[in-house]
Amino acid sequence: MSAIPEFHLYAFWRSSATFRVRAALNLKGLKAHELFVNLEAGEHLRPDFLAINPLGGIPALVQAGQPPITQSLAILEFLEELQPEPPLLPRDLHGRARVRSLAAMLASDTHPLLTPRIKKYLATQAGMDDAAWRAWQVHWFGTGLAALEQRLAREPQTGRYCHGDTVTMADVVLASILAVMRVFKIPSQNTPTIDRIMASLDALEAFALADPFRQQGAPA
Amino acid sequence: MSAIPEFHLYAFWRSSATFRVRAALNLKGLKAHELFVNLEAGEHLRPDFLAINPLGGIPALVQAGQPPITQSLAILEFLEELQPEPPLLPRDLHGRARVRSLAAMLASDTHPLLTPRIKKYLATQAGMDDAAWRAWQVHWFGTGLAALEQRLAREPQTGRYCHGDTVTMADVVLASILAVMRVFKIPSQNTPTIDRIMASLDALEAFALADPFRQQGAPA
Repeated sequence: MSAIPEFHLYAFWRSSATFRVRAALNLKGLKAHELFVNLEAGEHLRPDFLAINPLGGIPALVQAGQPPITQSLAILEFLEELQPEPPLLPRDLHGRARVRSLAAMLASDTHPLLTPRIKKYLATQAGMDDAAWRAWQVHWFGTGLAALEQRLAREPQTGRYCHGDTVTMADVVLASILAVMRVFKIPSQNTPTIDRIMASLDALEAFALADPFRQQGAPA
Repeated sequence: MSAIPEFHLYAFWRSSATFRVRAALNLKGLKAHELFVNLEAGEHLRPDFLAINPLGGIPALVQAGQPPITQSLAILEFLEELQPEPPLLPRDLHGRARVRSLAAMLASDTHPLLTPRIKKYLATQAGMDDAAWRAWQVHWFGTGLAALEQRLAREPQTGRYCHGDTVTMADVVLASILAVMRVFKIPSQNTPTIDRIMASLDALEAFALADPFRQQGAPA
């Protein structure tokens, strides 16, 4: 009876990429039934999940009757096209390019370096211990955020949020990175513009509801 | 007198992400004047380039009078919106999501693990020697391609190319990864569907002209 599409979302409580989809669904007034995939128990590597995403990555969004959609940026673009209001991209071509570029600085050039499969490879193949992994995390989160901070601080399009005074995909991805940094207790340092924007994002219900510690499976 | 926009492209001959932009420009009949940034000489870390991209990454596309656009997927989306014909995304929502997802499997979840800054960190901070770096390259290129092969082989939307019989962003990214694997002499193994698609892509002038070995700075 409803025109609202029915979604399932394969999710893990602290997954940064899952946070992005949760926040975007919330912003657009859409809902998904979450299916918990326990990364710590290796459930993402079981045949039934690899049939959904052979890379074993979370999240995957499934609209009833359609094939699963994987890759968080592809899911954000899908949701934007499915439900254009409120928009998560500006209208002008160069504004859209800027938002997508800011988002990719973290979603493509930062976060993929910091996922469990990378940790596993470095521990088993390169003898990286916990302290060295921690240094790797701090380095690459810090590198991505420092570059983003420089752009946000100097580019005139930055407003209350990453691009003007409206929430965009860039904010969704930024918040997703800071959410997982909070989980790992890695502070963001020397990022005053990012800190200011995050304070605004933290005040929004769509982001608060996506917080890792409010999800199924999170530690009490 | 022409309506064709004037572009400059900061480029490096063997850069996989630069290949993507070159191929997309060629497919859309657009031209860019390339500005050679020698990654091997560290030119991407000089202040004048960091002012364009504080992450130090190639490529950056500059349309006259506009700020630079960084991040290859953001540039591909920009070119698609600027010059919609021929389209590099299908029309239907789920088809677009599939193409973007296939592209991100390689552009987000594979290639960022394999860039010079990662090699430098692993060599200097984790004591990774050339043989171990080679094993890392083989592992992550292979992981990304194996997952993509599974999807292409089993999903009915695969055609002559990654999605049907029309070239899309997924093909552009796939070819960009195989181009850099060829530079590093890393073969793609057990990927019959990918091999078949690449044979079709290799026959297209837009891709042949983007070949790393045909660019300024390439070894003779």
